[in-house]
Amino acid sequence: MSQAPNLSTNPNEITRLLAAHSSSMSYDGLSEKARTVGKHALLDWLGVSLAGGQEHLVTILRDQAASEGLGDQSTLLGLGAKGSVSQAALINGAAGHALDYDDVHPKVGGHPTVPVAPTALALAERDDRPGRDLLTAIIAGIEIEARVGSLIGDGRDHGWHQTSTVGVFGSAAAAAWLLGLDAESTMRALGIAGTQAAGVMASFGTMCKPLHAGMAAEAGYRSAEWAARGFTGAANIIEHEQGFAATHGITFDTDAALAGLDDTFFTETILFKHHAACYGTHSAIECARLIRVKPSFNLTKIQKVEIRVHTRITKMCDILAPTDGLGIKFSLRMTMALALSGEPTSALNVYSKEHATRPDLVALRDKVTSIVDDTYGYRGAGVTVHLSDGTIIHENFDVAVPERDLNKQEAKLIEKFRSLATPIIGEANAEKTIYDVLALENLTSIQTLVATASSGP
Amino acid sequence: MSQAPNLSTNPNEITRLLAAHSSSMSYDGLSEKARTVGKHALLDWLGVSLAGGQEHLVTILRDQAASEGLGDQSTLLGLGAKGSVSQAALINGAAGHALDYDDVHPKVGGHPTVPVAPTALALAERDDRPGRDLLTAIIAGIEIEARVGSLIGDGRDHGWHQTSTVGVFGSAAAAAWLLGLDAESTMRALGIAGTQAAGVMASFGTMCKPLHAGMAAEAGYRSAEWAARGFTGAANIIEHEQGFAATHGITFDTDAALAGLDDTFFTETILFKHHAACYGTHSAIECARLIRVKPSFNLTKIQKVEIRVHTRITKMCDILAPTDGLGIKFSLRMTMALALSGEPTSALNVYSKEHATRPDLVALRDKVTSIVDDTYGYRGAGVTVHLSDGTIIHENFDVAVPERDLNKQEAKLIEKFRSLATPIIGEANAEKTIYDVLALENLTSIQTLVATASSGP
Repeated sequence: MSQAPNLSTNPNEITRLLAAHSSSMSYDGLSEKARTVGKHALLDWLGVSLAGGQEHLVTILRDQAASEGLGDQSTLLGLGAKGSVSQAALINGAAGHALDYDDVHPKVGGHPTVPVAPTALALAERDDRPGRDLLTAIIAGIEIEARVGSLIGDGRDHGWHQTSTVGVFGSAAAAAWLLGLDAESTMRALGIAGTQAAGVMASFGTMCKPLHAGMAAEAGYRSAEWAARGFTGAANIIEHEQGFAATHGITFDTDAALAGLDDTFFTETILFKHHAACYGTHSAIECARLIRVKPSFNLTKIQKVEIRVHTRITKMCDILAPTDGLGIKFSLRMTMALALSGEPTSALNVYSKEHATRPDLVALRDKVTSIVDDTYGYRGAGVTVHLSDGTIIHENFDVAVPERDLNKQEAKLIEKFRSLATPIIGEANAEKTIYDVLALENLTSIQTLVATASSGP
Repeated sequence: MSQAPNLSTNPNEITRLLAAHSSSMSYDGLSEKARTVGKHALLDWLGVSLAGGQEHLVTILRDQAASEGLGDQSTLLGLGAKGSVSQAALINGAAGHALDYDDVHPKVGGHPTVPVAPTALALAERDDRPGRDLLTAIIAGIEIEARVGSLIGDGRDHGWHQTSTVGVFGSAAAAAWLLGLDAESTMRALGIAGTQAAGVMASFGTMCKPLHAGMAAEAGYRSAEWAARGFTGAANIIEHEQGFAATHGITFDTDAALAGLDDTFFTETILFKHHAACYGTHSAIECARLIRVKPSFNLTKIQKVEIRVHTRITKMCDILAPTDGLGIKFSLRMTMALALSGEPTSALNVYSKEHATRPDLVALRDKVTSIVDDTYGYRGAGVTVHLSDGTIIHENFDVAVPERDLNKQEAKLIEKFRSLATPIIGEANAEKTIYDVLALENLTSIQTLVATASSGP
């Protein structure tokens, strides 16, 4: 950061320290890599939000907001309407998580961009801020999420959906940054946000899971606005003995939360989803993609395929013989058949009843076995393909390792965005949006970006 | 209830059973006492909301809502404006708790009416429902709160502000009832509401404490609207192993939650605050009021006064020599001096710097001693006054025991309402509001009631 705050590491001041960290962030102080991955995160979120905005749950939220009266401050992505910043944060937040295809960060214990970007974009649109401000605000939000998540550990086993409970701090930090709040006011914003932290795992499998992301975005946004107007909240919401960590946390790791405040950007290590299926299938799919391009590979000669993954993954997504698109998303065997056959696992429409029942895919699926092997960790996989000519091809992959080649990451995210956004906004607008986001630091008007990214084809 | 649902007592179906209980409620099925106390609760809430609406924190919420665009569905009490139902629920909810002078229910572990009435009133106003519908909806909400609270116990020691975390279920139930949702849709509304449950004790002493009530009102309202439009939520949000009770609860007492579904109304046992000070001072104040009217009492002859209360109370409100109005509210000794002197402890303006420093009150205060005596329980008190002529007068009181004489309760609440509302809406409107609320079952138009209760003098 260009203006490093005077930080001690007093664990009784964690909220204050994080507020100072966020409010003192500047575009100039960001690492080059954080800037690049931050733009990747925005592009990725725009794509999944445009596509997710077509889901029924988003229509319900939009219709209800319309019945109460839509504001005219910020665009509802892909819905051909505007709303207040609150409405845009809620609705675009839910849209971004509707497909469960948005990015991931292990330190957050959830999805980092989806509670932050809707708030930052809606506010930056309202005030027509330059691209650098939007980018810095998003990164400020993600950094706060990663540090709050690092502090409290993974609360998912205790019932908390951290995309929401941690995300509300990220949204508040991003909004506070855009509103120009100082460290003290940002601390109050975090105080107001933290007491709104909500979202339980019982809601998984219902429309409330994506709603959680929108709730966090909206609550964080309003917290910052209220704080800017003098509203008070606990100065120590995170560390208070009856505060956020005590109620929502598992650990209280202040070292992790405050590590490398001067030079570490967790934004750099965001993980992206490149397949529109359960995250547990992704490492195996990546193995298949590596295997498929080997000269010795021959699709027609496959005798058997073995997938080795952690117990947790077999519990999560091992539907043996799926019969519809949703089933495919949770089937290690069928996603393997798709990937080895060269079907585009990044496309939404590949997860269909037609593919679930297509004879060649079903035949290949039946040659696939999943084998529990905890040495692969929570997210890794090993795939072994046995061909009839005796050839054995094996590959390992771990999607929990961030992509080192950012050009490669960018190329994949551009493809993903095209696939998701072009049907909604048309090719010309999709290409212009890609260009604008990847050159965000040169963009002078977020309203221009939003107009392009939300127009019909 | 006139239409008792077919209930089993399967603990795995607690959400479903409570949804059925709420959705099947009818005005005809309410006990006479529940109807009467329900009207008392509405009158009391209107008074504290009108007065609370003048607080700065409410102005901030109103100003922010105005900057995003106010709807025109429902009245913002005492603020001379309308908003959407969501905005009215949020803002009137916060207003109702701004003075911390609203009603209490031990089974809720907090304040029962303040998360429910704002939602019910705003929705009943929007649709101009008759008084009976408003009353039934409020009672449905309070009953659900009391049963959810009975299930999970008192989470306050674990950091949860149950007015909000339990209140969101009450708001959702009231809104679902007014929207005519059946048991299944009400269950979904509770599912959506429960995953929004938030509010931690760390926020006490900040503007977020009253905000919590508004948050719960707004979230509950929206949950019901979304459910009505087909939004899905967990069918078992309360009992799910990663649901509400697991994350926010202390106990899981299904017997308490489901006791007497056919004939028990927890609304009957709402407790009202009759003094604008910390609840911990109320029993002692009531003792003073009993002592003051004894023939043997003589203010000028007081030698010493002993207040016996539970440790919890001395920890909460034993400021020995307060210097301002807020200090008086948390001073057993100074509130005792006020009460024995006949000052109106129900009036907001008695808690002032002038009273804190008035020589006769300070002199009397210095004759008062607080003594820890846990036999009085969390809310009771015993007061002994020693006069210089050797007379000793002792009285005990426990505000946790609901008033048996409802006429007496009504008379006291009318006085309280007059004191709070007349400065805001004038005498004529205040008297008309009292009349309308106490004859709510005969009122055909809630819009009429709201117009009266929110007009200037």
